[in-house]
Amino acid sequence: MAKTNPGRFFEDYTLGEVIHHAVPRTVKMGERALYHMLYPARHALYSSDQFAQTCGLPFSPLDDMIAFHVIFGKTVPDVSLNAVANLGYAQGRWITPVWPGDTLRSQSKVIGLKQNSNGKTGVVWVRTTGLNQHDETVMEYVRWVMVRKNNLDAPAPETVVPDLPKAVDATQLSIPKGLDFTNYDFALAGEPHRWADYDIGEQIDHVDGVTIEEAEHMMATRLWQNTAKVHFDTSARPDGSRLIYGGHVISMARALSFNGLANAQMVVGLNGGAHANPCLAGDTVRAWSEVLDKAETDAPGVGAIRLRLVATKGGAPFALRGEDGKYLPEVLLDLDYWALMPT
Amino acid sequence: MAKTNPGRFFEDYTLGEVIHHAVPRTVKMGERALYHMLYPARHALYSSDQFAQTCGLPFSPLDDMIAFHVIFGKTVPDVSLNAVANLGYAQGRWITPVWPGDTLRSQSKVIGLKQNSNGKTGVVWVRTTGLNQHDETVMEYVRWVMVRKNNLDAPAPETVVPDLPKAVDATQLSIPKGLDFTNYDFALAGEPHRWADYDIGEQIDHVDGVTIEEAEHMMATRLWQNTAKVHFDTSARPDGSRLIYGGHVISMARALSFNGLANAQMVVGLNGGAHANPCLAGDTVRAWSEVLDKAETDAPGVGAIRLRLVATKGGAPFALRGEDGKYLPEVLLDLDYWALMPT
Amino acid sequence: MAKTNPGRFFEDYTLGEVIHHAVPRTVKMGERALYHMLYPARHALYSSDQFAQTCGLPFSPLDDMIAFHVIFGKTVPDVSLNAVANLGYAQGRWITPVWPGDTLRSQSKVIGLKQNSNGKTGVVWVRTTGLNQHDETVMEYVRWVMVRKNNLDAPAPETVVPDLPKAVDATQLSIPKGLDFTNYDFALAGEPHRWADYDIGEQIDHVDGVTIEEAEHMMATRLWQNTAKVHFDTSARPDGSRLIYGGHVISMARALSFNGLANAQMVVGLNGGAHANPCLAGDTVRAWSEVLDKAETDAPGVGAIRLRLVATKGGAPFALRGEDGKYLPEVLLDLDYWALMPT
Repeated sequence: MAKTNPGRFFEDYTLGEVIHHAVPRTVKMGERALYHMLYPARHALYSSDQFAQTCGLPFSPLDDMIAFHVIFGKTVPDVSLNAVANLGYAQGRWITPVWPGDTLRSQSKVIGLKQNSNGKTGVVWVRTTGLNQHDETVMEYVRWVMVRKNNLDAPAPETVVPDLPKAVDATQLSIPKGLDFTNYDFALAGEPHRWADYDIGEQIDHVDGVTIEEAEHMMATRLWQNTAKVHFDTSARPDGSRLIYGGHVISMARALSFNGLANAQMVVGLNGGAHANPCLAGDTVRAWSEVLDKAETDAPGVGAIRLRLVATKGGAPFALRGEDGKYLPEVLLDLDYWALMPT
Repeated sequence: MAKTNPGRFFEDYTLGEVIHHAVPRTVKMGERALYHMLYPARHALYSSDQFAQTCGLPFSPLDDMIAFHVIFGKTVPDVSLNAVANLGYAQGRWITPVWPGDTLRSQSKVIGLKQNSNGKTGVVWVRTTGLNQHDETVMEYVRWVMVRKNNLDAPAPETVVPDLPKAVDATQLSIPKGLDFTNYDFALAGEPHRWADYDIGEQIDHVDGVTIEEAEHMMATRLWQNTAKVHFDTSARPDGSRLIYGGHVISMARALSFNGLANAQMVVGLNGGAHANPCLAGDTVRAWSEVLDKAETDAPGVGAIRLRLVATKGGAPFALRGEDGKYLPEVLLDLDYWALMPT
Repeated sequence: MAKTNPGRFFEDYTLGEVIHHAVPRTVKMGERALYHMLYPARHALYSSDQFAQTCGLPFSPLDDMIAFHVIFGKTVPDVSLNAVANLGYAQGRWITPVWPGDTLRSQSKVIGLKQNSNGKTGVVWVRTTGLNQHDETVMEYVRWVMVRKNNLDAPAPETVVPDLPKAVDATQLSIPKGLDFTNYDFALAGEPHRWADYDIGEQIDHVDGVTIEEAEHMMATRLWQNTAKVHFDTSARPDGSRLIYGGHVISMARALSFNGLANAQMVVGLNGGAHANPCLAGDTVRAWSEVLDKAETDAPGVGAIRLRLVATKGGAPFALRGEDGKYLPEVLLDLDYWALMPT
């Protein structure tokens, strides 16, 4: 087994090191078509070149979540192959749209380390950067995971916990060059609700549900070259179930949010996110959103809206945590992101 | 729930109104590849650029059924979200081929309304037109659906039932510009049978069968951005089954019909169609055809053939209706269309 | 049923005849994206245009197995529709890479015939050639299958068994024009192991496993326009199971072999292969490899490595045959191929 990748263990990470992740990927229209097949994605800016042109872009970019998944997938062999848990995201920003033909690669800098008191695991914080073939940053985000130690005798590193703001400041959001919503066509986009129509604190039940199949989540996860065993191999978990990649739930919930947030076109910030409970095939995924904040931007007709996106596998909308403060068992995802809307 | 789309109810339709459906869609080679993955599609004109060029076209267009599905899918949120039943199609014509890179959108005109005697539902007839980015009509068809009333006290509209001929007249079929079958390569196309070899009344058993999986029909239906809940959500129907989109059965049967009708290359007319019984995952779909009519065309070497295409989930071929005149329980689809063949 | 294809029976083959298979296929980026969705494919040369350019190619070709599957699929209606068993492969060579936009077609020459002693079946050997739109040979291989006789009274043909070397001689391998691994980026490729690091006789456990679903293997098989009933129709086999296309197992195993053979980039020779036992949905496929041979090439920095690739559905790695000399029941595939690696 000397030539196969055993993955990294907690003691293999060094504060400040930069990991260059393998296997760059050229993405084109095929990936876009697949995204529309795997998720009920209908945001018009990612569906129609003409619609995107009306919004000041040269043509329709690949979905922001494709960028995230491809960049994330490359980190798995180096960051989460031996992870016990994916603990959180922070400070995510989409900086440059991905155009058909772009080639993406990823690198991660270790920005925090903390061995757990049990001495068997530790938490690793990395800041991952996705780059295109022009060495432009496509997106970046911080992720922290709990990773097993292989050598329990390895000394604990100095504890460094990065200071991570609860949200990306609206002034730090990157607006795609040329974006202009002053000629936005609400009829073609599917809903009349503009940025000004949403109130902070407002909650939206996205109504629709999708029952998930094994074939679908595996194909989605493979498409992003994410190789974590638990998603594919029924012998990898004691109960024989395949754990669905958390990003599959993110994309499903974001697509379902079209119904009520059809004009929240572009995702530009990832403030935080928790995969609250595992999602398995057979679960019917639903979603609801809550408006957390709003901000103006410098781009013509473009407002920023901060949204909580919650995916569930049952229960009533708008219920998130129990009396004990913990996520309810039916909650799959609690995501906090910034999107751009026509004002 | 104020911001989510509740769909239209019977009382929300007005005779003569034109509904501009949302979310235009740019389709390219990805959608073509997916069509070949989802269906056993082998018609050569849609498989090979060189074959299409031999037939006088600049290159291979997207399958005619892709055009239909994309155009149909856009109408669902406005026409059939609260539909009880999809009752029929008529007067369908494919007018302009869809080329990779085209952007499609749909609009529907309400051409008929009839409240049912129970006062709870009504029938709505719409003429749907699909347009490309040059505002050329790609295809058009009439569909009628039974829709629930939301407000049972809403007054019944004046009854208008459109006069719909049983078939598109062969002289009204649109032949793609440049189409010329005089250099048609029967060997590459897969069968030697030409238009002249088919007799009116002839029946063809297409022999092959495909057992359908949940993941497949959901991915196909999503690909066309068709959002009807019953296809995706096991909680949407009392028995927990997911109803397969009727268009999935159409495409499956059309693809199976290659075996015996490999040279019925282009679909140009939709005379009628009934989804006779529901199709569910696990069903094994088979198909048979009957030649209903033949007509000459002005294009060199091109003949038109009118075909009944029947999809079943069992039973013997060529059985359609019982003694009571109703469709047999194993019949899924009874479609009536015009195709173009080399003479 | 006169117009449907019954397939060929043993008595329908004549030594020396050339069969021109139907339905040419244009493949583009969509097929490439689908390959990444269906298999955990990560070889960098097929993932990134920039990586391929670093290796001297104009951009990333389609996966060698896409070429094989498309070319193979076209032969099914003429060669294996009535086949009892797919007995073997030999003398396979990939000669010209497939670029997005190429159109592939296939032809097969009958090079051997041998009626079995039972008088009910016979073995047919064909040399299949895949061609692109420039009439260049993309790949060629010999396959032999056992085919049923339809007319048991048909006379047995003269027995001709072709002389097939056990392996393609390394000097006969075709190196893609321009290929140059002297600037190969091992970090981006995912592993540091170069050609010189592998020893003849070395065995590699590829560790990862993938549990297979019905929807996946049917979609993959359809994508290559392979129409063999046993893959799709639960009524085609007595036990109601759908037999998974052997090529699906080949692609899955090859993709899994990334973990330990990430730098075995291009497949250029197919020396032999046996589908040892049937693969069914629910099986968890794993793979191991053994280095059989190594050879130098004329291309800069490019070495050839001959590998045995074994796919299993259980059991321990490196076990192949029982004491009786037969394949163990858990062995799915025993493939023998040449690949190109950086020296």
